[in-house]
Amino acid sequence: MSRLEAILEEIRALVEPQIGTGRVADYIPALARVDADKYGIAVVDLDGNLASHGDAFEPFSIQSISKVFTLTLALEKRGGELWKRVGREPSGSPFNSIVQLEQERGIPRNPFINAGAIAVSDVVLGGCESPVAIDEITAFIRRLAQDASIAVDQEVASSERQTGYRNASLANFMKSFGNLENSVEEVLSVYFHQCAIAMTCAQLARSALFLAAGGKDPVTGEQIVSAERARRINALMLTCGHYDASGDFAFRVGLPGKSGVGGGILAVVPNRCAIAVWSPGLNANGNSLVGTLALEHLAAKAGWSVFPS
Amino acid sequence: MSRLEAILEEIRALVEPQIGTGRVADYIPALARVDADKYGIAVVDLDGNLASHGDAFEPFSIQSISKVFTLTLALEKRGGELWKRVGREPSGSPFNSIVQLEQERGIPRNPFINAGAIAVSDVVLGGCESPVAIDEITAFIRRLAQDASIAVDQEVASSERQTGYRNASLANFMKSFGNLENSVEEVLSVYFHQCAIAMTCAQLARSALFLAAGGKDPVTGEQIVSAERARRINALMLTCGHYDASGDFAFRVGLPGKSGVGGGILAVVPNRCAIAVWSPGLNANGNSLVGTLALEHLAAKAGWSVFPS
Amino acid sequence: MSRLEAILEEIRALVEPQIGTGRVADYIPALARVDADKYGIAVVDLDGNLASHGDAFEPFSIQSISKVFTLTLALEKRGGELWKRVGREPSGSPFNSIVQLEQERGIPRNPFINAGAIAVSDVVLGGCESPVAIDEITAFIRRLAQDASIAVDQEVASSERQTGYRNASLANFMKSFGNLENSVEEVLSVYFHQCAIAMTCAQLARSALFLAAGGKDPVTGEQIVSAERARRINALMLTCGHYDASGDFAFRVGLPGKSGVGGGILAVVPNRCAIAVWSPGLNANGNSLVGTLALEHLAAKAGWSVFPS
Amino acid sequence: MSRLEAILEEIRALVEPQIGTGRVADYIPALARVDADKYGIAVVDLDGNLASHGDAFEPFSIQSISKVFTLTLALEKRGGELWKRVGREPSGSPFNSIVQLEQERGIPRNPFINAGAIAVSDVVLGGCESPVAIDEITAFIRRLAQDASIAVDQEVASSERQTGYRNASLANFMKSFGNLENSVEEVLSVYFHQCAIAMTCAQLARSALFLAAGGKDPVTGEQIVSAERARRINALMLTCGHYDASGDFAFRVGLPGKSGVGGGILAVVPNRCAIAVWSPGLNANGNSLVGTLALEHLAAKAGWSVFPS
Repeated sequence: MSRLEAILEEIRALVEPQIGTGRVADYIPALARVDADKYGIAVVDLDGNLASHGDAFEPFSIQSISKVFTLTLALEKRGGELWKRVGREPSGSPFNSIVQLEQERGIPRNPFINAGAIAVSDVVLGGCESPVAIDEITAFIRRLAQDASIAVDQEVASSERQTGYRNASLANFMKSFGNLENSVEEVLSVYFHQCAIAMTCAQLARSALFLAAGGKDPVTGEQIVSAERARRINALMLTCGHYDASGDFAFRVGLPGKSGVGGGILAVVPNRCAIAVWSPGLNANGNSLVGTLALEHLAAKAGWSVFPS
Repeated sequence: MSRLEAILEEIRALVEPQIGTGRVADYIPALARVDADKYGIAVVDLDGNLASHGDAFEPFSIQSISKVFTLTLALEKRGGELWKRVGREPSGSPFNSIVQLEQERGIPRNPFINAGAIAVSDVVLGGCESPVAIDEITAFIRRLAQDASIAVDQEVASSERQTGYRNASLANFMKSFGNLENSVEEVLSVYFHQCAIAMTCAQLARSALFLAAGGKDPVTGEQIVSAERARRINALMLTCGHYDASGDFAFRVGLPGKSGVGGGILAVVPNRCAIAVWSPGLNANGNSLVGTLALEHLAAKAGWSVFPS
Repeated sequence: MSRLEAILEEIRALVEPQIGTGRVADYIPALARVDADKYGIAVVDLDGNLASHGDAFEPFSIQSISKVFTLTLALEKRGGELWKRVGREPSGSPFNSIVQLEQERGIPRNPFINAGAIAVSDVVLGGCESPVAIDEITAFIRRLAQDASIAVDQEVASSERQTGYRNASLANFMKSFGNLENSVEEVLSVYFHQCAIAMTCAQLARSALFLAAGGKDPVTGEQIVSAERARRINALMLTCGHYDASGDFAFRVGLPGKSGVGGGILAVVPNRCAIAVWSPGLNANGNSLVGTLALEHLAAKAGWSVFPS
Repeated sequence: MSRLEAILEEIRALVEPQIGTGRVADYIPALARVDADKYGIAVVDLDGNLASHGDAFEPFSIQSISKVFTLTLALEKRGGELWKRVGREPSGSPFNSIVQLEQERGIPRNPFINAGAIAVSDVVLGGCESPVAIDEITAFIRRLAQDASIAVDQEVASSERQTGYRNASLANFMKSFGNLENSVEEVLSVYFHQCAIAMTCAQLARSALFLAAGGKDPVTGEQIVSAERARRINALMLTCGHYDASGDFAFRVGLPGKSGVGGGILAVVPNRCAIAVWSPGLNANGNSLVGTLALEHLAAKAGWSVFPS
């Protein structure tokens, strides 16, 4: 057992009492019935070596973590023009708030709140060569993860659509300000499908390795994005990746990260590794309760922080 | 001339066309009459070596940069209890907004917006052994900068007090929610005096060196704060240090920093150096226009970022 | 010529310089091409006598004035239960604001802002015996106006639907909080059609006569609603009938009223008469500029106010 | 016993079960110790006849009801210019909210929320001939009530000052936007003293008689304000007199009114009478619970409404 796996085991012991606590997302049946006791963590280093613990090979709904991948795609398609459509400031509001959208006339504060991610999906859709945008997104993630088996969970996608009134409200609102190019229905379809992609911790960590390595997949050698773009995506994850708990995450964990309501969190340790953790119970801000705690312990024990001493 | 000084010279050439642009703070006469063409920058590395350019030895009003020092002092006095009095989330609002203070019942979002810094001043005042709190703050900064000449500009302090109705509004508001222990007048006096401290770029960079070195002054060897606390102060500067442009600063510069309306910006490169830049013209968010630009160039040229490739 | 017609003529002279000013609603072509110089006014007294001036017999799009009729219908269907779905307080916000809807968790502030009227349309739809709700609404208005020719302008209705993203946002938002019983699409269809009803000033004034006469049509003798309900609808028109200019309208005109973006305003003089005025140019709050002015003059000259001296 | 006194007795029986419920204002000791079971009501008709019931001759703290008198004074001093300093729209927010004040850059929404009343006090102070503004206000109220014994309760005034941080926040905020001419301290002193005036129901009803009689004291014959101004003050009371429950009061009671946190409510029946009721327990919006109920019953039984049938 590697030193890292030993640390992961220690962390499991530390978070054990909290496993099963927090509130599992229950707005759609497919999420509500996920076992609250699931817990997995995976770390992939720059050589592609994997260390893992627990349910690290069981797929879960990545939900908002998908926003990192669509942001990357949209930046590749549109470059800096994207920032006319969406800001890059923390919101100071819940993930689905519409208040700031009204104050800022249809321009979402950042690409990681729901409104911003919907605008990003619109950009991806608009720049798509594939007839089906979601296929292009899935293909991109498969390429990043080097795993052709990654797919949308159609049950989740269809439930999202049936209950997604709040997101439909956000999309219509932006459309009314001219900040969606495609039809509301098409954009929401892309958005609901990307949120419904299912991945394992191992796949997620692997797929984000390029963000830890200056934009290049360090295993295949493929340059996914420029080093500067990778740095900037990391900066956005640090300041905006956890809705209205982004400051707290930076304070406690000190790493760029992105959480999803399915209980997953992706984190990046620049020049070192990518991490994915999964535990379905959420805290009051909608981020994985045990996942955040595990990352806090891991960062402390391994001495990983973007603010090293 | 060192390589770094050569870089600083290149940067000067790059920002030259912008020098004198932006809007100099004019709410008090002593700030309004500052020469808009001033420009200085100083870098102090972990050995205490200084590289500088321009007006790096001319004192200016540090204004909100003082909030980094009072936060450090308050954490030393009160520890984690401080976070019951002030949050650590980006605000998504201008520096002097009172809206969120009402929504969050008198608890400011973070220690770097005005309301938060006033609450921090109250904590410093409450924990003060010196009869005059501002003397303790000044003494702390002198110790950090290893320079006994640093002092409050009394003209600025007295002007701040006479025009500080917005800050008086914030302080009274927090007092009404029980979030000030001392009298409004006393707390505001501390706050207005700390903002009126005058320092040079060279002094400022030196005084923040402990934040680049795990909380320890790398020259004197004195442990100012724990390594963990230094990391956390850096995290707060990255997510909240530039009011409602914090996300943009992280995106463009990628370093923990804190700006002041006097045109100064302090930035920290963990494990490497501390930087201070000064140029009085401000951008729309109240941060030094040329200062931000200079730091962006410096970070890019020197390869300094907390998100390295 | 009656004394009242003489007054109407005087008023025409007084408002003449303003006719054609203001901004004609242009969000749909059918409204944008309305002649800005149109001006009509009609007064119907409790005996059914009509006094009129100008383009009082030309149909225009009643838009939000329809909200008075659907509110009346919804109260008849649901009674006081309606107030669980919508409040009765002035909003302090523009007609289409979504901010308060978020703060008040999907319950609109009053039935005259767009969100509130959409909730009211949902109630009407839910309580409808007719297979097509809009037919029931039209039939009700025809009965009130004693005029079978009143109808929906289908071009307007279809344009509203194609551009109504902001209203779709409001409806989806309420649906997400469980405050719509029917499907978003169905409710919006009712709402867009009721707004597209075309009426003349003469028809409008006649249709509101019951509100001036204790809930009873004073000509036919039919009791439309109870006297108490009529008083309460008048109270709502006074406090909420003009979006964020309701206070100003009460201050200047002193009568219950409801405006529409088509340039119409309906006003009620209890125990005396009902008035309708039409002039397409709008002021900054979205109310007819000349219409408001004409009503102010009429109320002053005729001594009509709910606050008599 | 007059018919009206019989009605007042019936109403007492109807509200009896609620007397003593609600929450007595307790932010200052002098208010907190008021007996929750107090209940008084007084009606003064245009001939000056008084009908009363219960504790109608016991003085209580009029608090925000004083805003009607200072508004009247300020309008006499400054006329329509006043409306550059304060709006006349319902606020849609609690009485002491500062949110809208920020959005509207220091201009309060109306003269009956705290911020607006403080601006009005500033106007009164600025236009004062008397060396002590509060003396002029008291003298004005004595003249209206025809009772020289009316006075400020100094204990209340001094308590208000010691705990009035929220109002100090509002005043400083307006001062920062240039919307106070006098010093914050002086204006707050006037405001806190006017709120501390003590009056009985009988005195209050008498003092507002001019508002029921076209601006003229119908007993003395003195024209206090023009008929138009009286109408407009009534309109403001109807749309803005009860903070964020103004719509509900208009809906249920249908009369211009103004409430105070001391449990008093003043109401005007144009062309008929003025009413004052007192019961210290407050509802969730800060208005007298039993007082509102009693007025609702009285308006219904006597057929008094500005929206008559």
